[in-house]
Amino acid sequence: MTTLRYHRPVRARIYSILLFFVCLQAAYAQRPPAISSPDVHADHRVTFRYYSRNAQRVSVSGEFLKVAVPMKKDTSGIWSVTVPAVQPDIYPYSFWVDSVQIADPSNTYVFTNERFKRSLLDVPGDKPLIHALQNVPHGKVTYSYYTSETLDCIRPLLVYTPPGFNAADRKKYPVLYLIHGGSDTEETWTTVGRAHLIADNLIAQGQATPMIIVMPYGNVRPKPMAEFTRDVVNDVIPFIEANYPVMQDSRHRAVAGFSVGGGQTLNIGLTNTARFGYICAYAPYTATDEFKANFTNWSPDVGVMNKQLQLFTISVGTDDFLYESVKENIAMFRGKKLNVESLVVAGGHTWMNCRLFLAQSLQQLFRE
Amino acid sequence: MTTLRYHRPVRARIYSILLFFVCLQAAYAQRPPAISSPDVHADHRVTFRYYSRNAQRVSVSGEFLKVAVPMKKDTSGIWSVTVPAVQPDIYPYSFWVDSVQIADPSNTYVFTNERFKRSLLDVPGDKPLIHALQNVPHGKVTYSYYTSETLDCIRPLLVYTPPGFNAADRKKYPVLYLIHGGSDTEETWTTVGRAHLIADNLIAQGQATPMIIVMPYGNVRPKPMAEFTRDVVNDVIPFIEANYPVMQDSRHRAVAGFSVGGGQTLNIGLTNTARFGYICAYAPYTATDEFKANFTNWSPDVGVMNKQLQLFTISVGTDDFLYESVKENIAMFRGKKLNVESLVVAGGHTWMNCRLFLAQSLQQLFRE
Repeated sequence: MTTLRYHRPVRARIYSILLFFVCLQAAYAQRPPAISSPDVHADHRVTFRYYSRNAQRVSVSGEFLKVAVPMKKDTSGIWSVTVPAVQPDIYPYSFWVDSVQIADPSNTYVFTNERFKRSLLDVPGDKPLIHALQNVPHGKVTYSYYTSETLDCIRPLLVYTPPGFNAADRKKYPVLYLIHGGSDTEETWTTVGRAHLIADNLIAQGQATPMIIVMPYGNVRPKPMAEFTRDVVNDVIPFIEANYPVMQDSRHRAVAGFSVGGGQTLNIGLTNTARFGYICAYAPYTATDEFKANFTNWSPDVGVMNKQLQLFTISVGTDDFLYESVKENIAMFRGKKLNVESLVVAGGHTWMNCRLFLAQSLQQLFRE
Repeated sequence: MTTLRYHRPVRARIYSILLFFVCLQAAYAQRPPAISSPDVHADHRVTFRYYSRNAQRVSVSGEFLKVAVPMKKDTSGIWSVTVPAVQPDIYPYSFWVDSVQIADPSNTYVFTNERFKRSLLDVPGDKPLIHALQNVPHGKVTYSYYTSETLDCIRPLLVYTPPGFNAADRKKYPVLYLIHGGSDTEETWTTVGRAHLIADNLIAQGQATPMIIVMPYGNVRPKPMAEFTRDVVNDVIPFIEANYPVMQDSRHRAVAGFSVGGGQTLNIGLTNTARFGYICAYAPYTATDEFKANFTNWSPDVGVMNKQLQLFTISVGTDDFLYESVKENIAMFRGKKLNVESLVVAGGHTWMNCRLFLAQSLQQLFRE
């Protein structure tokens, strides 16, 4: 099992980084020293390091910790701490340097987000986790642009094509539109969510149908919800269908999303059930004008809709700050006799849960 | 002209971010406020903003400034400063918060690097610069993995395919292998170098031949140089040739790189001139064992080599800390009667110069 770029043994990595540091020290004297952080040990303890001669206090805080843990400075100005074994998963973390919260400068693995910079700690399992980079056939993630007539601009878009995909084959695939959270970007489902690796692994295990996954950029301001619904339906889907071999019926088209993207998923999906046979909302944020307009006095033809929907699922963690709101929405949809599955797990409004929800959905989509 | 994700008018963007902030304020109370930074004004002045109630001193430092510029705090805890008009280009910058150097938390546009976190300021030109996202046909950048037998691990790789590329056509393309600097990653040539957009624009103008650009991950420790040469020749090239429609002769294969990657370019290219007809080294770092072993007592068959090489160019800025070393190497190669072009410009060891060097090379490659 090999994880993303952390494929070198920890000890060799430290030696090699020290060697590289010595070589380049003269040339790059103005840069801080190269240090290895985080170092994940075989027993799942983790050492964090940070260089500062001037800081008064440094600590590490992260979603695997209840409280921030102070770090100690050695004579060379390197602060460090080793924390007890961490349950294998990927966790956001940051350093507090005096009053400043920062990403770990030595870690290239960053949480892609528009409002903060945090780093990601990847603690591999003794058996590879579902998001681990494994020695299986790999799909590809393509960064691309489309022109949105709705929004009058060029927008970015990521597309996952499954292992063995070859446009020359003219084979057609089902397609999942997968939407990030409120201040995330089109990259967050791959950089934090590892959607591509989860898909690779489930496909390799025969647990998921090979599919194309489209990850648009969901933030549209000042009216995120309504305009994004129109952008997806009128611009994103036609762009994908013109450029990728995707099936074009609702039984082969799904939409899923997290948080604000989960709310967008409900708006996009439930107002377009002729287009989307699968709707998966993860901890959906629904306190929006569009959601109110769509669902306050909603009286759909539930008989038709329940036939159109192959899967309608809402997932949430019991510690999620949206848990009560999500429960109310599930009850509201069930009150209207809509077939809605729910997946309720432990944990909060986190990407640890997001990966779990996605892995569950990928096993349910397009399984006829 | 539209730049990457900064496609909204600045004023609308501020309003919309404020609105979004109000909506999510309650839910995300533990997060810092959403603020807009950097704001690039029409006259090329730039406003930077940073939120901290506790910091004593905040300043902005960047490659467009001679010295750091102090920021001032308002009553809401937002520090800001507006700097005079900045020459259009993309510049690394960071904030100093008391003694801590950080990336701008409000800016998703980050310098991809293993040893520091800096943000990028994109000041668009009145006429679009060569790296600007323009309304022209766009190629795609694909994130992929290959297995390196040389290094015994799975490694990441980015591949640019030009506008109109369609694997189903079976049309073949020339290929450029493009290598990042010493602590950069496989993403740095796109995130900082904008190689894909420079190629899109030059191809649209008829100034560059449509080509495939392969961006491998060049860091191999503890022996970066020799092992990477073997990885490129024995693993990367065969992987690309098995998976992409590239021409396989030296007149349609180029190698280019910056800094440590420039040194790697010289090692890879000049020891394999039967494979590479084009070698472009940008501010090459050559104080390595592999370079010494290859070139100290080098006596190539220059007649053959000059016939094989369609282009051998070394580029550098006069303020580059490697300028003297690069000049010595150019003289050394010329002393051996090798045809080497040089491009010497103003400026330092910067990605501003890198983009310039790449734009120059793309116009020279594969032009028969």
